Amino acid sequence: MRIPKIRDYVIKNLKYIMKPRSIAIIGAAREPGKIGNQVVKNLIDGGFNGKIYPINPKADQILGLKAYPTVKAVPDDVDLAIIVVPARVVKSVIQDCVEKKVKGIVVITSGFSEVGNRELEDEIVSMCRKYKIPLIGPNVVGVLNATQKVNASFGPKLPYKGKIGFVSQSGALVIALIGWTWNQRVGMSTIVSIGNKADVDFSELIVYFAEEDPDTNAVALYIEGLDAGPEFVEACKRASKKIPIVALKAGISERGSLAAMSHTGSMAGSARIYRAVFKQAGVILAENLEDLYDRSLALSLQPPARKDLIMVITNGGGAGVISTDAAEKYGIPLQDTPRDLVPKMKQYMPPFGSAKNPVDLTGMARPEDYYGAVVDALKHPEVGGVVVLYCHTAITNPMDLAKKMYEASKVAENENKPLVVCFIGGEEVDRASIWLKENGVPTYPSPMRAMSAMGALREYGRLLEKL
Amino acid sequence: MRIPKIRDYVIKNLKYIMKPRSIAIIGAAREPGKIGNQVVKNLIDGGFNGKIYPINPKADQILGLKAYPTVKAVPDDVDLAIIVVPARVVKSVIQDCVEKKVKGIVVITSGFSEVGNRELEDEIVSMCRKYKIPLIGPNVVGVLNATQKVNASFGPKLPYKGKIGFVSQSGALVIALIGWTWNQRVGMSTIVSIGNKADVDFSELIVYFAEEDPDTNAVALYIEGLDAGPEFVEACKRASKKIPIVALKAGISERGSLAAMSHTGSMAGSARIYRAVFKQAGVILAENLEDLYDRSLALSLQPPARKDLIMVITNGGGAGVISTDAAEKYGIPLQDTPRDLVPKMKQYMPPFGSAKNPVDLTGMARPEDYYGAVVDALKHPEVGGVVVLYCHTAITNPMDLAKKMYEASKVAENENKPLVVCFIGGEEVDRASIWLKENGVPTYPSPMRAMSAMGALREYGRLLEKL
Repeated sequence: MRIPKIRDYVIKNLKYIMKPRSIAIIGAAREPGKIGNQVVKNLIDGGFNGKIYPINPKADQILGLKAYPTVKAVPDDVDLAIIVVPARVVKSVIQDCVEKKVKGIVVITSGFSEVGNRELEDEIVSMCRKYKIPLIGPNVVGVLNATQKVNASFGPKLPYKGKIGFVSQSGALVIALIGWTWNQRVGMSTIVSIGNKADVDFSELIVYFAEEDPDTNAVALYIEGLDAGPEFVEACKRASKKIPIVALKAGISERGSLAAMSHTGSMAGSARIYRAVFKQAGVILAENLEDLYDRSLALSLQPPARKDLIMVITNGGGAGVISTDAAEKYGIPLQDTPRDLVPKMKQYMPPFGSAKNPVDLTGMARPEDYYGAVVDALKHPEVGGVVVLYCHTAITNPMDLAKKMYEASKVAENENKPLVVCFIGGEEVDRASIWLKENGVPTYPSPMRAMSAMGALREYGRLLEKL
Repeated sequence: MRIPKIRDYVIKNLKYIMKPRSIAIIGAAREPGKIGNQVVKNLIDGGFNGKIYPINPKADQILGLKAYPTVKAVPDDVDLAIIVVPARVVKSVIQDCVEKKVKGIVVITSGFSEVGNRELEDEIVSMCRKYKIPLIGPNVVGVLNATQKVNASFGPKLPYKGKIGFVSQSGALVIALIGWTWNQRVGMSTIVSIGNKADVDFSELIVYFAEEDPDTNAVALYIEGLDAGPEFVEACKRASKKIPIVALKAGISERGSLAAMSHTGSMAGSARIYRAVFKQAGVILAENLEDLYDRSLALSLQPPARKDLIMVITNGGGAGVISTDAAEKYGIPLQDTPRDLVPKMKQYMPPFGSAKNPVDLTGMARPEDYYGAVVDALKHPEVGGVVVLYCHTAITNPMDLAKKMYEASKVAENENKPLVVCFIGGEEVDRASIWLKENGVPTYPSPMRAMSAMGALREYGRLLEKL
């Protein structure tokens, strides 16, 4: 069903889905391995501290919780109903939800428009809309909120906690990428699997994150197809004043668009059309999954770059050369070091170093040298942001450098400028990178990825200037 | 100095540098922390089982080894001399090497053409050429051979052992990337830091790897600038009949080329010119450092794809859509599943799966289903290669799938077709990926990277068809 305009009641009520105080699982099951059991278990294991009401007419207790025959039998208010019953029963349990006045619904059950059963899907959507209950799904993994510890899904666990709100049209990717958020410390506030997006679509979720959710600083989207282009543009324009939006559009090749259609039934459209839509909407594009995570991480942790002059500070010429190429690719071509910054930079390097941008402190650079150069660059009024590149050397303990870069990030915060770090090396270096990310500094394993992150921060800065 | 044609004596004698039986370290030092100490320590710690001769006129012993006042005083033959003495003394110790008839020289010492001291550099090169002793450097980290356990460098340790020969114009990257080879199990036979490449350049090393080194199956190059374009093209054409060559060309942007010039003194040249040169030379390009490692890993472990039809087998539609876009990007646009393969694929999936390419086995796919589908695809005469995508699900132990994919790789080996794997997920999935890589199957964390690897395998296949 075509989505109506961005609806106020949806924007307001999505909080009952994302941050519910009480949850009914309709179709809760006693048998381990069933989705109806997994969702209850996930809510408990995730540490949800609201009320959990398993609904099952044939059970007294599920996983130690009192079960109710219908949602109507629950003695308290129910904010969120998670529906996992078979498709043919979904309509009648939604009727129960309407009567119970639940405030939001997530339909995990599949077997709707994705297999041609559009009529049933339209019927449940009509019911929900009539009673102004936002519905996520059907055919989804669920909703995961790391801030509120709500794992209302059959995903393996909550994501690593952070500030990204991630909306995905692919359920399998949601599940698989939760592992990534932990491995790479890509912090997420919320993950929403939107499946068939029969009622609530990308648009309203984007506006919700921007306007109603203080826990989310950046929105990441995995999109296969958009059914409601004008609403999407309107929502993104409205939201991107407050919050950056990064999107990976899959299915942009000719055959990829056919694959997307067979996967989610979406009309994928050409790359050219999408690029135009995203540009108009103020959406920052990602090239692939890593880039979606890399860019949204930086945008969720750092302020936008308000000026074009990005300083790169390195201890290796090669990494500097790569970053220079990358800067051009990502729309932030490096400019000369401001004249009065040159002598300052020279303080931190031996005579064979280079104060040109990228500034090469050489392999002799100690953590204090990095700190001095980064802070001086951050404080220079013409500088919009700083990228630090570190190639591991025998003379530096990467954790010492990480701690200095954390200190520098406090200066960056004061200056309201972004700082992005790249640490290249092995295990010891990775541990230092993880520590830096845990402490709010976006850190990447290669110059290309760090420059893409800074490119996104500048892109958002330019967008805000235009608005 | 302009490199002469590809010299036979260099090709033949490089083995004394890469696989020496005896090594003299001229400028060996007793003091820990000094490069002259580190190189001796690295040779010992790396497990070199040839003879090590520290050369130092003021020491009797260094790290427990008898020291000699000059290389001429060494009682045995010396295959390789590593020179770490100050630049002003290098000429006289090279004279000693000539008299001692050492078979190869690596000059770690810096302070030559990279700081304008070209005359001295030219003099030492003339001496070596006159006596037909190949010289690597000056201004390098050294040479590391994981197969022969020769860490003749001041790098932290030997790389993870494998089949890639890596030649780098950046020393800092060599050092930092050794950590990557271990973290990501990107196996290397040899790493050569070529610094100022005053005598031996990329060209002769490439031919050496192709014709003289059975331990190397693929060559990876980090290039900032080429001084000898025609020789490079000739060497690559000659070598790529036997071995694939992958290159990351840094300094391709306008400013990146200036940065490269200031870093290595190389005339970097425009992206367009380089692309033309590489195409003519049969060099496979990499987009960035990860891609250089990803592509060379696949090329070092797998045979080239001899046909255009690449089958992708996935358990998640989203990953399939991304891989379809990536296939187009990397020059291997997906084709339809051959008609007689369709019913075979359907055996391994529920009715809502898809036998179209990418084949979607759905989230219910078990390791046996993957195995069956992959093996049937590999055995089909029209199929050139198979890419497996796995989005982690709760129902699968990724190590079980890894073991099945290892079995499938044996079938691929028999069929002489490449198999590339992508495992998306968290820690458990990463462990399975590492195990697969240790067992010779190139495995990547995202569909884009796996498709780039397969794209490189097909590119090499096409190159061989043309030759």
